[in-house]
Formats: sequence, structure tokens, C-alpha cells
Amino acid sequence: MTCIFCDILDGKTTGYIVYEDEDHVAFLDKYPIDDGHTLVIPKKHHEKITDMNPVAVGKIFSLVPRIANAVLSGAGADAFSLAQNNGKAAKQIIPHVHIHIIPRYNNKGTVWTKRQIPTNEVLSELAEKIKTALI
Amino acid sequence: MTCIFCDILDGKTTGYIVYEDEDHVAFLDKYPIDDGHTLVIPKKHHEKITDMNPVAVGKIFSLVPRIANAVLSGAGADAFSLAQNNGKAAKQIIPHVHIHIIPRYNNKGTVWTKRQIPTNEVLSELAEKIKTALI
Repeated sequence: MTCIFCDILDGKTTGYIVYEDEDHVAFLDKYPIDDGHTLVIPKKHHEKITDMNPVAVGKIFSLVPRIANAVLSGAGADAFSLAQNNGKAAKQIIPHVHIHIIPRYNNKGTVWTKRQIPTNEVLSELAEKIKTALI
Repeated sequence: MTCIFCDILDGKTTGYIVYEDEDHVAFLDKYPIDDGHTLVIPKKHHEKITDMNPVAVGKIFSLVPRIANAVLSGAGADAFSLAQNNGKAAKQIIPHVHIHIIPRYNNKGTVWTKRQIPTNEVLSELAEKIKTALI
């Protein structure tokens, strides 16, 4: 089965990666709800968090505060939401566990639909800013 | 400062509790987005997950798969989303870290607005079902 996130991990598809360790990767969502929208995924393919070992669930979420702070700093955002969907009735689209970090801005609303799709250049620059903020 | 979640922990406000351990409590949201909407909170008052120790963040999220499975079973739901808001621009309303477990159903949409407010009897019965499913 083809998985777009596994393809990013394998380098078959370009990913604007902001963080990587042995078991996890974080990259920019190419269809962001808001600027800086980032996804954190386990390298191991699981569909839902209920398919994962609870210790592994804890491990991936323990990374989120650090990555979220870098996203806020790099994107210049004021706040953030996490979202994580499990199953078709919850509108999970890609069947590989992913945690959405959605930056929010004081001067914008909190729309849940996708905004204008950024160019590759914009994504690449933003990923660099977030990576720099992570160091 | 008054905190409605700390009041539930202190027994000053009724909470429809489905899970409790030394450091965490999970209870039904009284204003559910969908039937069985549950909140998981740390007993220690923190506003945002970025105010918490990353290990504590991992610990609370590691509980979520087990609680979510019980919520799905007790409420008869088909899928679930997690949501967790940090800061005013992300529409965080109660300034005490809380993870939303939002059950979803095949025969309903995924509306994010609150549905009809359930009676105390309905909440109480549902909490019992979820607690039973957790054992």
C-alpha cells in the first residue's frame, strides 16, 4: 500500500522537514490550515494511535512542546492547537498517525479549512526558520 | 484565581469522572461537541502544554489510547479526534491544560460546534458505561 508519509520518509516525495530523530519526523503540511502548520509522525507506519504502544504514544507527544515552540517562533505565531484524527468518521485522510500542530495568530480567526497553498519556496524558507528556532 | 477544572478536582463542582490516577483525571465535557466528548487533564494546574515538563506531557498522552478506546466502546462511537488548544488565539477557553477526546460517528458529520447539552442523568449513565469499559 502506498503511503504519502512513508514516501516522505523514504525520500520519494519532498518533505519540508523541521525535525528528525531515530523514531520521528516533523515536516510542514503542504496544505496548511494556517501558516506554519506542522505534522509530527512516527517513522513506523501505524494507522491510529490506538494501534501504537502507549509508551510510543507518550514518546511522540513528549516532543510536541519543543517543536511547537519552534513553530511559534519560526512562523511568528501567537498560539497553537494540536489535532490528531483516528478513523474515517473523524476525517482522518492519510492512514499514518500524524499530530497536527496548527499555529494561530491574534489578527486572524481560527478557520479549519485550508488557506492558500504556499509555494515550495515559501515552505522551504519557513522550514529553515523553524529548524533554526529548534537548535 | 478560580479554575473550573481545579474545582472539579477539589469536588467543588460535579464532574462526570471516567478515569483517575495520582496525576490525571478524565471526565465528560458538559458541553459536548459529540456524544461521549471527554477531557483528560493533569491534576497540576498548567495553562499550556508548553508550560509542562515534556515527560509529563508524554505521560498524560500515553493514557489517551486506553481512555479513547473506552470512550468509543462506552459511547458506541466509530472514530475519534484529539484536540488540545494552547492560548487565546487558539480559542483555549479554560486555562488549565486539557486534551479533548471527541468521538465521531459514521452516521453524523464532524461538526465542531456544541450539540444539545445533555442532562445530568445522561452524563452520569454515559460516564458509568465508559468507566465499565475501562476496567
